[in-house]
Amino acid sequence: MSTPSIETADKVRALGREILPAVPGSQAIYAGQHEQEPYAGISLTRDARYGPHERNRLDVFAAGGAAGKRPIFVFVHGGGFVMGDKHQPGSPYLDNIALWAARHGMVGINITYRLAPEFKFPSGAEDLAAAVTWARERASDFGGDPDRIFVMGTSAGAVHVADFIAHPQFAAARAGVKGAILLSGVYDLTLSSAPPNEAYYGDDRSNAAAMSSLPGLLASLVRLQFVVTEYDPVMFERQAQRVLEAWSERHGQWPDFIRLMGHNHLTSTFHLNTDDDYLGVQMLRFMATA
Amino acid sequence: MSTPSIETADKVRALGREILPAVPGSQAIYAGQHEQEPYAGISLTRDARYGPHERNRLDVFAAGGAAGKRPIFVFVHGGGFVMGDKHQPGSPYLDNIALWAARHGMVGINITYRLAPEFKFPSGAEDLAAAVTWARERASDFGGDPDRIFVMGTSAGAVHVADFIAHPQFAAARAGVKGAILLSGVYDLTLSSAPPNEAYYGDDRSNAAAMSSLPGLLASLVRLQFVVTEYDPVMFERQAQRVLEAWSERHGQWPDFIRLMGHNHLTSTFHLNTDDDYLGVQMLRFMATA
Repeated sequence: MSTPSIETADKVRALGREILPAVPGSQAIYAGQHEQEPYAGISLTRDARYGPHERNRLDVFAAGGAAGKRPIFVFVHGGGFVMGDKHQPGSPYLDNIALWAARHGMVGINITYRLAPEFKFPSGAEDLAAAVTWARERASDFGGDPDRIFVMGTSAGAVHVADFIAHPQFAAARAGVKGAILLSGVYDLTLSSAPPNEAYYGDDRSNAAAMSSLPGLLASLVRLQFVVTEYDPVMFERQAQRVLEAWSERHGQWPDFIRLMGHNHLTSTFHLNTDDDYLGVQMLRFMATA
Repeated sequence: MSTPSIETADKVRALGREILPAVPGSQAIYAGQHEQEPYAGISLTRDARYGPHERNRLDVFAAGGAAGKRPIFVFVHGGGFVMGDKHQPGSPYLDNIALWAARHGMVGINITYRLAPEFKFPSGAEDLAAAVTWARERASDFGGDPDRIFVMGTSAGAVHVADFIAHPQFAAARAGVKGAILLSGVYDLTLSSAPPNEAYYGDDRSNAAAMSSLPGLLASLVRLQFVVTEYDPVMFERQAQRVLEAWSERHGQWPDFIRLMGHNHLTSTFHLNTDDDYLGVQMLRFMATA
């Protein structure tokens, strides 16, 4: 079974489209399907420091025994710029994402980063750039390939990934980055439906266009995969629609784009590394051609 | 396995986006996975006449043994308005679609209809209206529920289904129709990317807006599910994009909409009733809530 069953999709639908009230229910739906620590056959390095701030920490997951250089997969959590973490102790999340990467022959890295309101745009992308640089420089320690790096983020994490891909100050840090997977992000801050997120962007919206990643994404040589879920809040649909329109206009056809049926803003990541491998298969297809 | 594997999706991708050159290859990919006639446990009525023309023929598939009234599922083939048929003798197509419906507790009906250039707009929708009326009136003969009818079409067939749903002259024939599934159709003939299809629409484009189903679809009380495939020709993406934009504007959010990954304009129907049940699950979810 590689897509949510009718029964599971009904449970997700019953949680509605609002994000925070759906967290416990979304965690519960997939909780029983996840691996428990210690993870069999996985070499796990917790809380390696990739920068000076207390939140500049990352976890590295690598399966033992595999020969050769493995792609490096870096995941960036969500949390509205003001909360979230790579790992909730005692919970399978978000270890499940880096584990999914390790179980598919990659070095999986989950990062934590600095938060608003103390740290503002583009601090998230700066931290991702530092984490990718850290991973590239230490790739051989983990059997990783510094020339084959993928980055993925969800929600605010997708914004950080998009900013890292789009803005010119991160060009050097993008060395070896072959692809980016963007789940339910905001890429055009000028849309009226885009949330203000003053904590991260400040009160001055006059530079909304300059802070938006969309123009840079459209011109990017790094390959991109976009995902929005069936039960995402509507403003994420508007962002996806904007991407489809702009990408069509620029490139003549849609980008790699998935509407993930039977999932919400949270289960899109919580279900990874379970029997539901629909998104996983699309991600592997994307990475194989990137 | 309920989605095309990486290997199968690669085969589909290799066939490209053009429709006609991809027909043999698309048929071959799923040929070995289909049931062969005679279909076990299926009561099959071939070539029942639902109208005066030689092409007003339909096939009815119903599983034996089930009690009670079953939803009626009517499928309309594609073929660019000028060709196509419900059944290719010696081939599993498109029996597989009505069989899928019968295997999921419905009465499955495949129809053939009149073709352009002899028969013009809206002859396809007229034939579908006649077939639905035929099915509603004879529902009890097949254990069907005349108050729970679904219609589905692909390509030109989706246009006929959309016209049937959208235009006022078919209101009476729509009695009992609860939902419509539209695969890779053209709904807005005013888009510059919309194909002219003069054979069906004639040379006069001045009434393109009036012949378009989109306004009627937006106002329809019949529930709708839209599908476009990853490897559809780009003009079908443009139509899907137009639907997303117009639906968002009218209803505040997207419709039930699936981008079918790993499939092309043909495998979207050729794969039904195989182990790949991704689209099938989405169709069953749609019908359960329609």
